[in-house]
Amino acid sequence: MTWLIPTRDSRFRNAALKRQSVLTKPAGALGTLEAVAVWLADVQQTERPAAGPCAAIVFASDHPVSHLGVSAYPREVTPMMAINLATGGAAASVLARLQGIPLHVVDVGAEPYPVPTTAPGVHWRRVDVGGTVGNLVDSDAMDTTALQGALSAGADAVDALPSDTKLVLFGEMGIGNTTPASAIAARLLGLDATAMVGPGTGVTGAALEAKRVKVQQALDRTEGVTDPMAVLGALGGREIAAIVGAIGRAAELGMAVLIDGFIVSSAALVAAKQDARVRDFMWFGHRSAEPGHAAILQEMDAATLVDAGLRLGEASGALTALPLIAAAVALHNEMATFEEASVPGRPD
Amino acid sequence: MTWLIPTRDSRFRNAALKRQSVLTKPAGALGTLEAVAVWLADVQQTERPAAGPCAAIVFASDHPVSHLGVSAYPREVTPMMAINLATGGAAASVLARLQGIPLHVVDVGAEPYPVPTTAPGVHWRRVDVGGTVGNLVDSDAMDTTALQGALSAGADAVDALPSDTKLVLFGEMGIGNTTPASAIAARLLGLDATAMVGPGTGVTGAALEAKRVKVQQALDRTEGVTDPMAVLGALGGREIAAIVGAIGRAAELGMAVLIDGFIVSSAALVAAKQDARVRDFMWFGHRSAEPGHAAILQEMDAATLVDAGLRLGEASGALTALPLIAAAVALHNEMATFEEASVPGRPD
Repeated sequence: MTWLIPTRDSRFRNAALKRQSVLTKPAGALGTLEAVAVWLADVQQTERPAAGPCAAIVFASDHPVSHLGVSAYPREVTPMMAINLATGGAAASVLARLQGIPLHVVDVGAEPYPVPTTAPGVHWRRVDVGGTVGNLVDSDAMDTTALQGALSAGADAVDALPSDTKLVLFGEMGIGNTTPASAIAARLLGLDATAMVGPGTGVTGAALEAKRVKVQQALDRTEGVTDPMAVLGALGGREIAAIVGAIGRAAELGMAVLIDGFIVSSAALVAAKQDARVRDFMWFGHRSAEPGHAAILQEMDAATLVDAGLRLGEASGALTALPLIAAAVALHNEMATFEEASVPGRPD
Repeated sequence: MTWLIPTRDSRFRNAALKRQSVLTKPAGALGTLEAVAVWLADVQQTERPAAGPCAAIVFASDHPVSHLGVSAYPREVTPMMAINLATGGAAASVLARLQGIPLHVVDVGAEPYPVPTTAPGVHWRRVDVGGTVGNLVDSDAMDTTALQGALSAGADAVDALPSDTKLVLFGEMGIGNTTPASAIAARLLGLDATAMVGPGTGVTGAALEAKRVKVQQALDRTEGVTDPMAVLGALGGREIAAIVGAIGRAAELGMAVLIDGFIVSSAALVAAKQDARVRDFMWFGHRSAEPGHAAILQEMDAATLVDAGLRLGEASGALTALPLIAAAVALHNEMATFEEASVPGRPD
């Protein structure tokens, strides 16, 4: 997997930094909002970036590992929640509707269910990625066919967005998927299962310990596998692979990507390990309550915006952080400079 | 100062908690957003709360202590920034406009300046609170007349809002005002100046140490003063006192209050120490980069939403957090229940 990442002229980043320094506020007083504006200026190659148009894409898939007791919820919840997302009742549906953001639900491997009647603003699609899937512990999560199919499904979902889309948010639905996300992150960060595995949907006690054991077994089975795409195939899942493909395609198109929580961050980690240049197109929206998220954020040197103990997935964390991107852009573009406001600057 | 705080029926809080437990998400997975919805249900005495109409009020005042070298900016910046707020170029102006929130700028003691031509959606007013003010170190910040005048100005500003206002945000502008805020918080939390004083607008090195010395001198001068209103008068400032009065009046009217950063939190601390029941009407929007903020948040047992290193004041932190209040309310009111979505719940 090779991505054709556009090169960028540093003058837009520099111009944005300069503008931030003359706005009517103490230097740095808008914290991460300043950095967001400068990041978007660089990604969009303009001194005055835009926070939209935006789109959210939620990829859904089942996981054979969900049969091994790693989740608090039964596997059947994945298709039912895919329907709930499509029909407007899920958290991500509500947050997208609130902000007028189109929500795309792309099913890349949930158990079949009737085509849902989508709510206004929601688009649903099913893609058969083909190939064979496994439970991580006994066999690879995806064979080459499934992996390539899922990566392509992700890229295709980005290609299907309106060409003026400036910012894209990815989310996921897949009962059991903190298990593959933990395994991916543990391998790519060189950690063991204990350091990465957390409660996910709410697994505690003996079940949490069992989840740790499964992840460690999967890591042991695949010892020596370190190539990011090979790790993704061995330890991932179809919706996670789709997000990797989608992130890469968004970067190719010069779109900014707002990363959700733990699962999407594991996909972001794969993408950045595959091609470090992709990292520049990402912002991490929030700090998840899932404990392993902190290790990924640290590796990615990520400054988050929202810290509200969210641990739901579905793009809900990114959608919650999205208004702060709009705030950062409005502040950057619309605040008065010291000169415009005739305010004396800091006497240095 | 006695406030007539309305009593509340616990059934609305309980009904909101019950609703949160049946929405299509793992229990607690929306973190602080769940708590925000339950808080608003309790404040508004309804199972389905509303996130608006909202209003923001920024109080501005000079501080005699600003002559003692406690700020990186000269005192003249206070009136210039009051004008910038009124004419639409300040951070809070931009954030209020972005969200369609009316912004009220109430000058309770800046050096006189010509009446500004307000931007659309902005309302400016000057109130002469009377009395005598001092620099904390050598004399009280406000005599009784100034304190009462400022408290009343704050209450009056809330009374002047449309009666259907459901959520109010307070902010401040006053060069030098992290100094009184630090002194107030240190006294009410039983800490010394070193524990509370931070850089404010960007004071570092010897100037920061001098600021610490000034705050400690003010604390030493007023040793034994512990009554919250007496502390406010001795160590505060007119815009801080106005916010205390405004918070109390909002609670009397059953309005929810979204608290900004360090300065407004020091006012919230005074109000809550004066009458513990007022605490129930507050949510703390963000965690400021000003180091003393953490101590106030801990004392108030406050779960914040935004952690983006903001340290600007003006209500900018509260305005940045405001979309998350709207998100919490929309999620609470609009998400499908497990039953509505035919999703199997967690098998307990």
